[in-house]
Amino acid sequence: MKIRLVISYDGTNYCGWQSQKNGTSVQQLVERAVLDATGEKVAVVSSGRTDAGVHAAGQVAHFETKCPIPPEKIKFALNALLPDDVKIVKSERAADDFHARYSAKKKTYRYSFYVSDVILPLKDRFAERIVSEPDYPKMIFAADALCGEHDFVAFSSVGSSVRSTVRTIYSISVTKTDGGFYFDVCGNGFLYNMVRVIAGTLIAVGYGEISAADIKAALESGKRDRRFKTLPAKGLTLLSVEYGN
Amino acid sequence: MKIRLVISYDGTNYCGWQSQKNGTSVQQLVERAVLDATGEKVAVVSSGRTDAGVHAAGQVAHFETKCPIPPEKIKFALNALLPDDVKIVKSERAADDFHARYSAKKKTYRYSFYVSDVILPLKDRFAERIVSEPDYPKMIFAADALCGEHDFVAFSSVGSSVRSTVRTIYSISVTKTDGGFYFDVCGNGFLYNMVRVIAGTLIAVGYGEISAADIKAALESGKRDRRFKTLPAKGLTLLSVEYGN
Repeated sequence: MKIRLVISYDGTNYCGWQSQKNGTSVQQLVERAVLDATGEKVAVVSSGRTDAGVHAAGQVAHFETKCPIPPEKIKFALNALLPDDVKIVKSERAADDFHARYSAKKKTYRYSFYVSDVILPLKDRFAERIVSEPDYPKMIFAADALCGEHDFVAFSSVGSSVRSTVRTIYSISVTKTDGGFYFDVCGNGFLYNMVRVIAGTLIAVGYGEISAADIKAALESGKRDRRFKTLPAKGLTLLSVEYGN
Repeated sequence: MKIRLVISYDGTNYCGWQSQKNGTSVQQLVERAVLDATGEKVAVVSSGRTDAGVHAAGQVAHFETKCPIPPEKIKFALNALLPDDVKIVKSERAADDFHARYSAKKKTYRYSFYVSDVILPLKDRFAERIVSEPDYPKMIFAADALCGEHDFVAFSSVGSSVRSTVRTIYSISVTKTDGGFYFDVCGNGFLYNMVRVIAGTLIAVGYGEISAADIKAALESGKRDRRFKTLPAKGLTLLSVEYGN
């Protein structure tokens, strides 16, 4: 039977989703919990990696099991074995042909900021600090230039080898909060560091360092402008993964 | 010269504001930072203790110094020496007769909840989990019974010896958030564990276990009902301390 999990984690203390030689990964913790709960050594396959320090509200993963625990109760069995910063939000039976990575249609990431001249301990864990308010209308205008199907090679870091660097961004919203704001970026897939580079670029637009025209030029040329900075992992959260039907 | 500090801290890793034999206190870290920045061994006096695990957005404290750093720049000097979970939000010169504890007129505490059948790693650090939605109108009605000047001995834990257990609550508000809610409790002072007991009592009202009449009876009798539970420290944050003028 195939089980679909929705997983949330505070990425602060982990080396990311994927198991690595050094550091503890979320994947390793979930696979260990499945082993301890069911006696089965399985691969837990997620919708994609998240980097070291990146958080998730709704990462999706699947695994195969013969375990007799009802699918919707599996989350309680696994949560009893997981630390408080990694928990299964939902468990359910998935169709036999469901694949957490290959069946994914849309992903939404959030990049959060707070505005302060000093580090604020109650906000700093899940958001990036900026010292002054950016120009919101400018950022909204520039975000529009990124939407649609483009070759995003100029908005990624060299790292993973992918066949194509063409992706579609469906929407980028800018939402103000008490003392800050966040970008929600929804697309059909993302290159390595792509959301963190987009967030860094839009912030630079908000400070008047980059224009929407610079973004359009980079999308056309495929050349990353050195002003397009990669922002830190802690501000980034994988909000949700959507699957057709 | 007297300096007034506004301090924010994530209380998770500390034994509270006040220095103790065991564990690291926030007071000790701030006094150590003052010593390292100015060479002066001072007492940093706060508006009051916060317990182990309680957070602060706006704790207020004062100390005396002969240090030549401009008062509004002292925060940067101290922040360079403090860990990321304890930071000075504001520093300024205070009047010679200012006293962080004795001059305080109002304090506001927030107790936060999220509703989920599993621990949510992105919310659990600063909020208490409850598994179902309480009845909000009932809680708002009961909160009203607590407002005003009362002997709150039935809503505190035995611990510190105080001369009087009469306090005034100016307001208790209930605000819904995305996936939860919080109580903001504003008063002229609070007994040991008082906000945590009030939060536990109001939640019990929201679940129909206690009525507003039970609260009134306890205020009159001074006897703590065993259904008035003290909720965990992590959901509590000292928001602000107000001073006259």
